[in-house]
Amino acid sequence: LLSSTADDLNYEQTLIKTLESRQIPFITVLNKIDLPQGHPKTYYEETLKVKVHEISCLTQQGINELIKIIIDQIPKDYEKSTIVGDLLKPGDICVLVTPIDNSAPKGRLILPQVQTIRDILDNNAVAIVTKEKELSTTLDNLSGPPNLVITDAQVFAQVARILPSHIPLTAFSIVYARYKGDLEVMLNGIKAIEELKNGDKVLIAEACTHHTQKDDIGTVKIPNIFKKLGKEVEFAWCKGSSYPENLDEYKLIIHCGACMLNRQQMMNRIRKAERANVPITNYGVFLAYANGILNRAVEPFNLNKSNNT
Amino acid sequence: LLSSTADDLNYEQTLIKTLESRQIPFITVLNKIDLPQGHPKTYYEETLKVKVHEISCLTQQGINELIKIIIDQIPKDYEKSTIVGDLLKPGDICVLVTPIDNSAPKGRLILPQVQTIRDILDNNAVAIVTKEKELSTTLDNLSGPPNLVITDAQVFAQVARILPSHIPLTAFSIVYARYKGDLEVMLNGIKAIEELKNGDKVLIAEACTHHTQKDDIGTVKIPNIFKKLGKEVEFAWCKGSSYPENLDEYKLIIHCGACMLNRQQMMNRIRKAERANVPITNYGVFLAYANGILNRAVEPFNLNKSNNT
Repeated sequence: LLSSTADDLNYEQTLIKTLESRQIPFITVLNKIDLPQGHPKTYYEETLKVKVHEISCLTQQGINELIKIIIDQIPKDYEKSTIVGDLLKPGDICVLVTPIDNSAPKGRLILPQVQTIRDILDNNAVAIVTKEKELSTTLDNLSGPPNLVITDAQVFAQVARILPSHIPLTAFSIVYARYKGDLEVMLNGIKAIEELKNGDKVLIAEACTHHTQKDDIGTVKIPNIFKKLGKEVEFAWCKGSSYPENLDEYKLIIHCGACMLNRQQMMNRIRKAERANVPITNYGVFLAYANGILNRAVEPFNLNKSNNT
Repeated sequence: LLSSTADDLNYEQTLIKTLESRQIPFITVLNKIDLPQGHPKTYYEETLKVKVHEISCLTQQGINELIKIIIDQIPKDYEKSTIVGDLLKPGDICVLVTPIDNSAPKGRLILPQVQTIRDILDNNAVAIVTKEKELSTTLDNLSGPPNLVITDAQVFAQVARILPSHIPLTAFSIVYARYKGDLEVMLNGIKAIEELKNGDKVLIAEACTHHTQKDDIGTVKIPNIFKKLGKEVEFAWCKGSSYPENLDEYKLIIHCGACMLNRQQMMNRIRKAERANVPITNYGVFLAYANGILNRAVEPFNLNKSNNT
């Protein structure tokens, strides 16, 4: 936002350079055009080498045009349009298996479950919500097999035993790896694990800054799994909004589920890893791999099929 | 919380009198017992005529006992233990009909829907979430009738036409009238409408302070319904935490759904109406009555049956 009396534009020039280098979209706006201007619009456009949109917050002049410009600028993949809607036809039945344990919020459901139910309804399908213990009864009460089952990864093995292999089954963590980022990139990232050598550096990136719990995934669970796999790698961690400028030294990045990031922020982190040629995966895909459930959990997405078409 | 050096207890005495007159439970605690005391515990107990519990936040002395006392003091009906659990057996199927209109929060479900799904799971039953348009398909996909259907009141008539009359059907607003307050009192309140005379005063009480929308229930919809019923009554409104000290002048109170109040607060308002001998009902029950759906929506609760036993 430029003030109408700005004379020295050094700060704005630096800012624009930084935004451009990080590929962050921006809009240049000249406010207070109801007041006498220090310089004409063309002065700002020529000095900054960008298009400048004139507005007045006081008189509302140019505001409606600005709103349109903002909407036009929103990146198309800022939000993925659907969580599971592309896997369901109208009238389809999608079963959600949601164990209720101590970590479930009192009297509520966790956000991914709520968002998935809403997404199912928005796609004219039907959501059945059940605990793992009532899953068999639920299937008995249906006149045919459900079209898709999404389970909490914790009970994946148990659900996989109950569910005949022809019924598509996946996990919330896999669904969200796709929704918040790029599932194919995350799956390619997993392949890098087999090639890791002792002493290689692995970055564990967490977007939120919660207090570390006893059984923390990033600092306890994932390092333990590497030990079991017989991989003596070195770990580095980053937290919150920090994400290393230079990723070159890492052989793999394992990112959290990104519930504190929007899709654009997560895609920016993925692209940065791709530019540095460092494989990236996430907690959900990694834990599914470590628990041997990744293949079945990925099947419903028909990734190869969609690649070929 | 008494400070250890308090000498003049006038303020505490006034406070205790007010709490007692409003039937609000309280606990008297003497803190800083690690420091030399101005007076012995017995001085406070005799002056205030209450039991005093000694603690030290510094040394933690007495803290565990205090936690136990607080838990013991929580009124039994502070929270009703279940929303619909008493209407369902383990393994039962409960269908929730949730239309998605413009007032639905983007990508989410409203809180009563989420809480009801969780309550169903907690009671070892199964929740099926569907829009009204997919309800027929949903019923076709079940091998038997569901045990209970709860619908958004907006589409009650439509759902009632689809659903055979032997399947129990109610509305979220009725379920929540019971969960947040006392359904029987609210139903008795409705009976007062028939006896209202022109010029009688009706209090419309709203617990939240949201901006009034075009089609506001309390200020627009309910007065319009009274007009249609041919009742020329006078309205008064109260909002937020205000609720008249003197209710005598009113012939009926119609209260909002109380989503901003906990059950104890709502029960306090109900009891105050009962003490003043003023019938009280709520938005959900009133709208169900006005739309002619109250009888079917109340049936699943077996109110007369439970009165007789």
